[in-house]
Amino acid sequence: MSDLGEQTTAAIRAGSPALAAALSPLGRRVAFPPGIPFQAAEARGAELNATIGQITDGRGSAVPLPPMAAALGGLAPEDRNRAFLNSPVEGLPELRQRWREWQRRGGATTPSSLPLVTVGLTHGLSLAADLFAGEGRAVAVPAPFWGNYRQTFEARTGARLLAAPAYRDGRFNPEALAEALAGLPAGEPAVAIVNVPSNPGGYSPTVDERAELRDSLLGVARRRPLVVLCDDAYAGLVYEEGIPPESMFWELAGLDPNLVPVKIDGGTKEFSFFGGRVGFLTFPFEPESEAAAALESKVKCLVRATVGSPVAASQAVLLQALRDGGAAAHVEAVRALLAGRYRALKGALAGADRELFTPLPFNSGCFALLELSERLGTSAEAARKRLLAEESTGLVSVGERFLRIAFCSVDETALPELVRRIERGLAIR
Amino acid sequence: MSDLGEQTTAAIRAGSPALAAALSPLGRRVAFPPGIPFQAAEARGAELNATIGQITDGRGSAVPLPPMAAALGGLAPEDRNRAFLNSPVEGLPELRQRWREWQRRGGATTPSSLPLVTVGLTHGLSLAADLFAGEGRAVAVPAPFWGNYRQTFEARTGARLLAAPAYRDGRFNPEALAEALAGLPAGEPAVAIVNVPSNPGGYSPTVDERAELRDSLLGVARRRPLVVLCDDAYAGLVYEEGIPPESMFWELAGLDPNLVPVKIDGGTKEFSFFGGRVGFLTFPFEPESEAAAALESKVKCLVRATVGSPVAASQAVLLQALRDGGAAAHVEAVRALLAGRYRALKGALAGADRELFTPLPFNSGCFALLELSERLGTSAEAARKRLLAEESTGLVSVGERFLRIAFCSVDETALPELVRRIERGLAIR
Repeated sequence: MSDLGEQTTAAIRAGSPALAAALSPLGRRVAFPPGIPFQAAEARGAELNATIGQITDGRGSAVPLPPMAAALGGLAPEDRNRAFLNSPVEGLPELRQRWREWQRRGGATTPSSLPLVTVGLTHGLSLAADLFAGEGRAVAVPAPFWGNYRQTFEARTGARLLAAPAYRDGRFNPEALAEALAGLPAGEPAVAIVNVPSNPGGYSPTVDERAELRDSLLGVARRRPLVVLCDDAYAGLVYEEGIPPESMFWELAGLDPNLVPVKIDGGTKEFSFFGGRVGFLTFPFEPESEAAAALESKVKCLVRATVGSPVAASQAVLLQALRDGGAAAHVEAVRALLAGRYRALKGALAGADRELFTPLPFNSGCFALLELSERLGTSAEAARKRLLAEESTGLVSVGERFLRIAFCSVDETALPELVRRIERGLAIR
Repeated sequence: MSDLGEQTTAAIRAGSPALAAALSPLGRRVAFPPGIPFQAAEARGAELNATIGQITDGRGSAVPLPPMAAALGGLAPEDRNRAFLNSPVEGLPELRQRWREWQRRGGATTPSSLPLVTVGLTHGLSLAADLFAGEGRAVAVPAPFWGNYRQTFEARTGARLLAAPAYRDGRFNPEALAEALAGLPAGEPAVAIVNVPSNPGGYSPTVDERAELRDSLLGVARRRPLVVLCDDAYAGLVYEEGIPPESMFWELAGLDPNLVPVKIDGGTKEFSFFGGRVGFLTFPFEPESEAAAALESKVKCLVRATVGSPVAASQAVLLQALRDGGAAAHVEAVRALLAGRYRALKGALAGADRELFTPLPFNSGCFALLELSERLGTSAEAARKRLLAEESTGLVSVGERFLRIAFCSVDETALPELVRRIERGLAIR
């Protein structure tokens, strides 16, 4: 396997020296071994195929239990069959193809690989962490950030999360990532996480801010190989005119040999399928390129090692939506629902007492952040507990001074009352 | 988190010093942090709950896209709703409870925890590897073994796989694990994998062999803390009278303080739901014990870090089968189908030319192994390729000298022809 690991690393180096330099020790050594899935793939089409460690009817079809077949009765017979069988480690071919078309529907012109299917976005992040993080590796992330980055990158791989304030004087700071990495010795590879729209911030940069962010990342890449993980969990959920809804992946790909974006997205939020766990990992290389094939080999080894294969049942369900001519309209209907909540919250917060808290700028995604006034003399966690106990209102505390409102799960008509309760619960007594 | 890691490790130590001693560095430091899922759990029942980063209708229900809702239309409305929302990190409560009852239906009397839901069996193995393997840790496994153990334990965590021949003179060797660990310094913790029925062997020990296996593991545990991972992927698929179908977990639990079995099982093979990826991880402690709670905290941290949460959609589908009064009969129908194939293969192999190969003993599971005669002068891999090219027959090569037949995916009536083709393809020319 070590040999295969070196061969795939060499193929990546040929396509992108910077990306190869940024591989972790684990990332360097893994490659999909010529084991059972490999041999089973070779035997596809054989008259007698006794490679497959799955229970089939003897002609390649699944043998589902009747109540479970009934549960998935809304799938076409062929899809239902696929739902009960193991997915290829890289994902169902039709889904990969259709997701790539979905990703590129805005008219993307830069190269992108055939997406690899993961078990939700977190699995995509954790695979990227296995590939590019590891002991001591600097991973820059604007703060406040989704707490699970700490488990995925730091606890598991031993990487160092470098947090830089995402907001300065109440405004988004596009230079945060570059600032976090400025102190690193020249030449040392680094990882940066770009999460647009953001969690917990609910923020997407403006056209000018995107340009600043892009230029600052280019500045970083002048001094070191830089892998930019585009965590596109909330892709498309943008509510203000003039805010670009596209992933940063598309404008970072191909910009500079030393800057390699990786796209992490999925059906979780984009297709409102939280319980399905279908995510995707995409690299900025043509599907037929050797670099894409080598990365696919490494990712498949890690997928096989962590979960065996991605979830066929959920892939079959997501496929139904992607095949449907109305996919874009269905996704837009969800965005419009959230846009209504966004406007209701924005309106309610506009009149709120600034002595208590200041809403940080938000324009997208599922969340808004309130920065508690220092005059309250309370921590965010104490405020959260008080709101829960006294106002029966659940928010999430983030760090010492922020409360997160998940407006994605609150009815539009309830949001003014939510803001009233927050004001009442935080009022100085 | 480090504090929480230490607290949970201490709680495990109080319940089982041996298990605590066997934790890897990663296993020691992880614990479920008081992050968003923790805060969201606290807010359940609040009048206004804005903790949840999921898109809901504002009253806690999912907002599925119409084609995807139709795909899961065979689920009861409440289950379908759950299928579209995030699962709790530990799994759906009803599924955990029902799976525990299913596990214990044979009348188990030893303690077992509420199973934690994983993304298929491999994820359970990989979580166990994170907890108990790691750099340099000895992991004993009878050979030939499922190749993916190498990725899951060795490539990812840096553990040392110690392989010991599972067969000696053409017979199962119950001492293999003990022999593999004999050379280890006294006191050094170790891991052993017990895979019954086995892959690729298709073997389950007899009553006497189980006693020998159990005693030999007890011998190991006299010299060191020993974690025994019971990989019960093929649980229940036993075809010979007198061969115990129960997991070894039940007879190892509570046997010796220094021997701690961990049960890894799931719906993949037991409920013929390969594409669903629902597995379970179970510890030999009472559900309400502090040790079980501490292990649950550590596992939840790792699940959250690797995949976010297990697959709600598949859990909802598996629940349909477990709630159905006919579950045992449905599972038995699958076993009976495979039993027919087993007998057909056994019969066909009985008359096969022993100059070419010897079938190793098999009595259960999905596979049979053929040991190639040395007189053939060919490797298993060369034989596999020849059978594929010349006989359009797909088998899997295992190591230098074994071919694996997956009779679980070949029609009963085709198995005699399969054996004829193997004989013809291997015939010395």
